[in-house]
Amino acid sequence: MANPVLVEVTRGNRVESRHRGSVIVVDAEGGTLFEIGDADRPVFPRSCIKAIQALPLVESGAADAFGLGDAELALACASHSGEPAHVAGAADMLARAGLDESALECGTHWPGNQEAMLELARSGGAPSQLHNNCSGKHAGFLCTCNHLGLAHRGYVDYSHRYQAMLRGAMEEVTGAIHDEGNVGVDGCAIPTYAIPLRALALGFARMGSGIGLGVERMKAARRLLSACMAQPFHMSGTGTMDVALMEAGEGRIFAKTGAEAVYVAALPSLGLGVAVKCDDGGTRASETIVAEVLAGLFSGDHALSARLRDLARPAVKNRNGAAVGQVRPTGALAAVAT
Amino acid sequence: MANPVLVEVTRGNRVESRHRGSVIVVDAEGGTLFEIGDADRPVFPRSCIKAIQALPLVESGAADAFGLGDAELALACASHSGEPAHVAGAADMLARAGLDESALECGTHWPGNQEAMLELARSGGAPSQLHNNCSGKHAGFLCTCNHLGLAHRGYVDYSHRYQAMLRGAMEEVTGAIHDEGNVGVDGCAIPTYAIPLRALALGFARMGSGIGLGVERMKAARRLLSACMAQPFHMSGTGTMDVALMEAGEGRIFAKTGAEAVYVAALPSLGLGVAVKCDDGGTRASETIVAEVLAGLFSGDHALSARLRDLARPAVKNRNGAAVGQVRPTGALAAVAT
Repeated sequence: MANPVLVEVTRGNRVESRHRGSVIVVDAEGGTLFEIGDADRPVFPRSCIKAIQALPLVESGAADAFGLGDAELALACASHSGEPAHVAGAADMLARAGLDESALECGTHWPGNQEAMLELARSGGAPSQLHNNCSGKHAGFLCTCNHLGLAHRGYVDYSHRYQAMLRGAMEEVTGAIHDEGNVGVDGCAIPTYAIPLRALALGFARMGSGIGLGVERMKAARRLLSACMAQPFHMSGTGTMDVALMEAGEGRIFAKTGAEAVYVAALPSLGLGVAVKCDDGGTRASETIVAEVLAGLFSGDHALSARLRDLARPAVKNRNGAAVGQVRPTGALAAVAT
Repeated sequence: MANPVLVEVTRGNRVESRHRGSVIVVDAEGGTLFEIGDADRPVFPRSCIKAIQALPLVESGAADAFGLGDAELALACASHSGEPAHVAGAADMLARAGLDESALECGTHWPGNQEAMLELARSGGAPSQLHNNCSGKHAGFLCTCNHLGLAHRGYVDYSHRYQAMLRGAMEEVTGAIHDEGNVGVDGCAIPTYAIPLRALALGFARMGSGIGLGVERMKAARRLLSACMAQPFHMSGTGTMDVALMEAGEGRIFAKTGAEAVYVAALPSLGLGVAVKCDDGGTRASETIVAEVLAGLFSGDHALSARLRDLARPAVKNRNGAAVGQVRPTGALAAVAT
């Protein structure tokens, strides 16, 4: 059965485009608070899961050994936009482990932030692997490998010891199997594993609450999510939905987008995890869905809820800057509320 | 009822994202050759309809008065990528009418072609309205206004005399009403009118065949479509699907994309028109749909059909350039064939 239409994009007084998807909100015991569409269909979490992938960086002691603070830990969980502070931060993390850009295996692309891309071009520069939106995550991987004495070459490959460590963390936190049966290759060359949306939400309910994790893992999860919420720019970039949600939440919302329109949130104060997948991979839709669901979950805080509802309804503008339409949630999302 | 899934995006051996949509192929009498999904739902044609909007440029005599050749006529039908030849071409068209960039009302944005954007930044430049992907269309509008002695200021507004001329052309060619009841504002500030996908396909069957148009309109349509097929770069840009389809077709395929995943094609040798809308606005899907449908319609030409099927199945690559998935049509499109 088709997932329901969760987001409409209007132009004038008509709907121009429609996005279908699924969303689930669970507590850390797996109890379902809200569910729409097929939450059991496996999805690739892509970059949504970076905070879970950063657990070994903290748990291994590498983060402390290399003196990583909130900004660096946020960068290790980041899909950053390639702004100068991100690039410098990733280079600094590598330098602390005695490495440089040449150790990265994530590939190169121009910064996702347009102004950063233009500035790099104006200065006569070209992108390096440090500009890759995943360079902070990879720098964290490399810090951990070096701290543990693992030869880092090939760290992106399924068969590398470090990827087995990551599978272990992801399996424990989400409760889902990660193996050759559900693996694909992510944009930054590491494996990504298709897991049920329900398991992804459960993973972030656990990450936010610590429930169901061991003491060390609970502490590591709290430290990573707190770092991201304290330094959202380092976990994302200028003008992104991740930053807007985490700034609005003031410590109550951890939110992370992923390619192909996956979105997760952990809400420590509510003990809940949220996972969203827009069927068609349209990021504008996953952004609207997560913001609207969070608005419902925080309906008891009128100011926060109103801010989140605004974020769920961005204007569509023409090239002269005039509002000519809107991205907006459909009534299918209206049922969510605590 | 939901439109069917027409395109899947894979990663590894799984489907990661799915695109629904509708497509219709008609002849110039409105006979339906192939139809899937809801072809009666109104859609905004957006830039798909630029060749119809360029009819007054030719019919008024403005194109001849200003000595416009194939490249300029293609540019008048273009969503160009802001490459230097496009910018120079639009400036030249305006100059022939005694105007310059200040007459444009389309707004400014950086070139859509990344290399053109980077080169502009490297040279210390900034985009002007000439870089707007619609500047050639607007330059054509301004040439026509000046040739006809119409004051051009406000030419983008619904109430301007020139927009009434465009409505007249679009109504006659598509057979659909264009008025306040179905108007929205396009990205370049001019009105766009939601019409049934069926009417859009009929319009391009007529544009390609001339059937159902008066003699002057038939000649103008043929001249414009021939110009686009002869100079596809000027109608689009480096590396685009429009160019790939028209180069493959060698005069048998006119193809034009539009924002929010609308696509049209006119096939003069077959007397057919094609219109596609991907529900969610995802352009990768409308590109795959139109290429696959054209492959079916040209199944009698094995080389052309094979080339079109390749275009319908681009690889998804990671940042290291490795193929990690594919965009591909679903079996729902398999029924199309002559």
